[in-house]
Amino acid sequence: MTVHQPLDRFTVTTGSIPGSRKVYVEGDRNPDLRVPMRAVDLHPSAGEPPVMLYDPSGPYTDPNASIDIFSGLERPRDAWVRARGDVETYAGRPVQAVDNGNVSDERLVPPFPEQRQPLRAKNGAAVTQLAYARRGIITPEMEYIAIREMMRRDALKAVSRDGEDFGAEIPDVVTPEFVRDEVARGRAIIPANINHGELEPMIIGRNFLVKINANIGNSAVTSSVAEEVEKMVWSIRWGGDTVMDLSTGRNIHNIRDWIIRNSPVPIGTVPIYQALEKVDGIAEELTWEVYRDTLIEQCEQGVDYFTVHAGVRLAYIPLTARRTTGIVSRGGSILAKWCLAHHKENFLYTHFEEICEILRAYDVSFSLGDGLRPGSLADANDAAQFAELETLGELTQIAWKHDVQVMIEGPGHVPMHKIKVNVEKQLAVCGEAPFYTLGPLTTDVAPGYDHITSAIGAAMIGWFGTAMLCYVTPKEHLGLPDREDVKQGVIAYKIAAHAADIAKGHPGARAWDDALSRARFEFRWEDQFNLAMDPETARAFHDETLPKEAHKTAHFCSMCGPKFCSMRISQDIRDAAQSAEAEAGMQEMSEKFRELGSEVYIERGQAAE
Amino acid sequence: MTVHQPLDRFTVTTGSIPGSRKVYVEGDRNPDLRVPMRAVDLHPSAGEPPVMLYDPSGPYTDPNASIDIFSGLERPRDAWVRARGDVETYAGRPVQAVDNGNVSDERLVPPFPEQRQPLRAKNGAAVTQLAYARRGIITPEMEYIAIREMMRRDALKAVSRDGEDFGAEIPDVVTPEFVRDEVARGRAIIPANINHGELEPMIIGRNFLVKINANIGNSAVTSSVAEEVEKMVWSIRWGGDTVMDLSTGRNIHNIRDWIIRNSPVPIGTVPIYQALEKVDGIAEELTWEVYRDTLIEQCEQGVDYFTVHAGVRLAYIPLTARRTTGIVSRGGSILAKWCLAHHKENFLYTHFEEICEILRAYDVSFSLGDGLRPGSLADANDAAQFAELETLGELTQIAWKHDVQVMIEGPGHVPMHKIKVNVEKQLAVCGEAPFYTLGPLTTDVAPGYDHITSAIGAAMIGWFGTAMLCYVTPKEHLGLPDREDVKQGVIAYKIAAHAADIAKGHPGARAWDDALSRARFEFRWEDQFNLAMDPETARAFHDETLPKEAHKTAHFCSMCGPKFCSMRISQDIRDAAQSAEAEAGMQEMSEKFRELGSEVYIERGQAAE
Repeated sequence: MTVHQPLDRFTVTTGSIPGSRKVYVEGDRNPDLRVPMRAVDLHPSAGEPPVMLYDPSGPYTDPNASIDIFSGLERPRDAWVRARGDVETYAGRPVQAVDNGNVSDERLVPPFPEQRQPLRAKNGAAVTQLAYARRGIITPEMEYIAIREMMRRDALKAVSRDGEDFGAEIPDVVTPEFVRDEVARGRAIIPANINHGELEPMIIGRNFLVKINANIGNSAVTSSVAEEVEKMVWSIRWGGDTVMDLSTGRNIHNIRDWIIRNSPVPIGTVPIYQALEKVDGIAEELTWEVYRDTLIEQCEQGVDYFTVHAGVRLAYIPLTARRTTGIVSRGGSILAKWCLAHHKENFLYTHFEEICEILRAYDVSFSLGDGLRPGSLADANDAAQFAELETLGELTQIAWKHDVQVMIEGPGHVPMHKIKVNVEKQLAVCGEAPFYTLGPLTTDVAPGYDHITSAIGAAMIGWFGTAMLCYVTPKEHLGLPDREDVKQGVIAYKIAAHAADIAKGHPGARAWDDALSRARFEFRWEDQFNLAMDPETARAFHDETLPKEAHKTAHFCSMCGPKFCSMRISQDIRDAAQSAEAEAGMQEMSEKFRELGSEVYIERGQAAE
Repeated sequence: MTVHQPLDRFTVTTGSIPGSRKVYVEGDRNPDLRVPMRAVDLHPSAGEPPVMLYDPSGPYTDPNASIDIFSGLERPRDAWVRARGDVETYAGRPVQAVDNGNVSDERLVPPFPEQRQPLRAKNGAAVTQLAYARRGIITPEMEYIAIREMMRRDALKAVSRDGEDFGAEIPDVVTPEFVRDEVARGRAIIPANINHGELEPMIIGRNFLVKINANIGNSAVTSSVAEEVEKMVWSIRWGGDTVMDLSTGRNIHNIRDWIIRNSPVPIGTVPIYQALEKVDGIAEELTWEVYRDTLIEQCEQGVDYFTVHAGVRLAYIPLTARRTTGIVSRGGSILAKWCLAHHKENFLYTHFEEICEILRAYDVSFSLGDGLRPGSLADANDAAQFAELETLGELTQIAWKHDVQVMIEGPGHVPMHKIKVNVEKQLAVCGEAPFYTLGPLTTDVAPGYDHITSAIGAAMIGWFGTAMLCYVTPKEHLGLPDREDVKQGVIAYKIAAHAADIAKGHPGARAWDDALSRARFEFRWEDQFNLAMDPETARAFHDETLPKEAHKTAHFCSMCGPKFCSMRISQDIRDAAQSAEAEAGMQEMSEKFRELGSEVYIERGQAAE
């Protein structure tokens, strides 16, 4: 096959996040581990250690890393996978024209330059983190995650954890053993395909930090390799923990290869999208064979988790007929159409055990899709949604029987008062398998602002126990997100996830807030910018009204101006209070006035002196 | 005094909100009432009546209104006020140079052209809506509000109200009598200075729609009349229900006049800001006399509510000394500084009854300020904050004794798990007086995005029972909001307020969402844009990828492209289901499969046909 589409060398966004320094922490058990963190050094006047932040951004934010998209990232995980001795390379499935939508040569995106032979389990072994965990094995991935989740919070003086955790069991210290235990119980997953050697392992579970997913992907309307790889790099730069490639257009196979080979975060897909492309978009013509072939194709590439809409059972479809917005999940509607056309049960349901057998050979995790999720407040928590959830619970048990990792997808559009029961039901029905929700949007009336309508729901559902939040961008319902939309979506969801961590009482989560608040109170403007979730925007907004360098050390800002600054006045009060004598005097005054406190109207002379 | 600063004729943003039509509803008791609403007409194919939306935007969005900022708005309320026969005009306090910060002539903003004699109560009468309500009088303001809050929802077929209201008592039908009753009980306020004849009355209370406030105001760093008036008009265009003028720079008096004379919404201020300007910014030099003089000055201008930090008692100040961020309220810190300097009780507290006497003569409402609100998660719900709240409860009773309307200000920065107790305590301590909170921000780490960090908290606290939410813009903590920031803040807060209304089960609130969701499902793109909270942005986002006019009737969008559209597939399903025969067949299938449902793995032949 001749490739006629020239692929100009392209680059992606690299370089430090302003004010952050990339650091790597080594493992104890596995000294070769290099677990990345973002260290924010504070002004010497703070007298505080650097603030350590969770960092999913990969080598792209390491100024010492050499990045070449055409070579892909380094693959340190290959050695860990091979060291387990239970995998083998094999020829692999040849790439077919249909994998890229039968696109003509001149429009074909070139394949990623280096094509390796894939790995798979030897002799039908389970090579999943769940299988190892159940056997008591602590993998390098597990130790990596323990270090990553701790963010060196053991170095903090005091840890504030006064949250309400709704039954979560978040430990003070995350040990590799704890990670193993949570994975073994199915309460957490480590999406980590054995063919994704570039991966920096991460965990999704209620007793760990709340994670966020960013969706990217081309569509029939628009597509470009460089844009999609940049969207992936860009989304993790701002905090995306996993990335789903939801491409539906042509060149799906090759674009995905470019993404995975350059991705340090888990990549998720919805294989039915590509399967549908292979049958020219005609849902009725989908077959188990086409779907199975697509699963293997993607397993070999290194996709880390698959959304599988096996819960859209034929019996549930009539439950959606009177809905306000019917079936809004693409996968759900494709399968519903197939079921109705054939008057047969969903083939993903009938072939579920075979799917499990495939996934366990590569350690691809299930993300059991909520094909019947509500697409409007009117449809929230209805019979169709909860019927499917029951089935997802049943399928979870089957996946676990096969040692396959599972998380469960959730809604969608849900008014605030109906959010909590979603988590409660999911935890009960799905044996505490991690919940992974899209939003939910708490109102339908703000297209253009659905990153906000849904960040409200996401923060709440994260607090209640959801392990990963799928972002929603401002373009939701209106168009495909561009680079700026991706950033807005990621930041809104980082806010939601972090607010949830705090409310759950995750140890050390609030240390970040406290450090920023101290910087704010002490007018350490540079520290405040550097600690901000988006240092560039924080600095730019400040500089719009006070651009001079001198203002970076000014003890006021443009909101109140110098005369009215409450922070300054408040510091005067503190200074007064902190001189021991003054404090003693104030305490005395305080007691005196509490005695008088029950009376509203005090004679002036009485109160003074 | 010669005015040397030329004031170029300026204009503000006017014209319809795209896709909305201004309608006015007449009163039953008072036929001259013209209560404004926004009607969104839908495509004929919808077969639905227009959607009626609450509309605080004033005549500026009425294409038939003639707007002249230099004349101010019409004053229909003057007649209602005078008809009560309990007010008189009088010479009023002469404007002094110090009222505008002793600014030199050439920098003085010209006074608003028409200066009227102010009104005040005759013979020490109480001319407050509370006083009338208690006497069983239903004022025109109350009838206006009843019509406004109903939004003609009596015309809706079915009303969905399945919320959780945490003890709110929201009626199916809002009658003038209900409005009177809620005001009489102090559970709602109608901020409506008798000198604000331009006002379109609105209500703030837990059993009504949740309202939002937008802050505007110049500072010592930046200032302009045209900008401030435009910010007011702009903020109400997008849904601001009240506007606080937090100016701290020069020309305060004159700029405020321009704002009030052109404002159809209640204007709130923090009089201590201007009082401090009058003593050259030296808190220690504040006196009751200067403050009193400022109150009267602003009462005469027509300010509708005053933030009064009378709860910052001397005894509480030491409680803030060890806080992470001390006192962050400007008013609170000014008074704290005064108290400490003089070692005296806060003069707003000691003179509280005199303040009540002034406010009742003009019907200015109290917004009892939370001068000790937390400025960081670390300080949330601490002893200082709750000590002040107790005092605010005590002061509420005193205000009520004087027939003065009261609402209570609340935080600030509060992690999600500590939000609810704020509302519970406030309701208990302050006798259900309306709660008015700033956010709260649910994390401190996202300067530049605090409209989002706080919209999360605002939606929740609104749901729990807060009556009005004070917006936070993206510039919070960083600088003064510009026009775009104001819009972003207002939209984020309209989202929060509406999400809260839905979750509370406010009757008819979800009708808006349902109408938009139906439009979405039926690909009525124009209806979807017109029903959006921000029609311009929704349309612009859609058009970025699908700009052609034909795409406005397309049964797909750029997110999935034509082949994968779940909505389209879902409509096919519905069409199939809605043919009666098919539905019967599907029901039968459904039952059959439920019988089989307990088995996961069904033989293929068994399920089919």
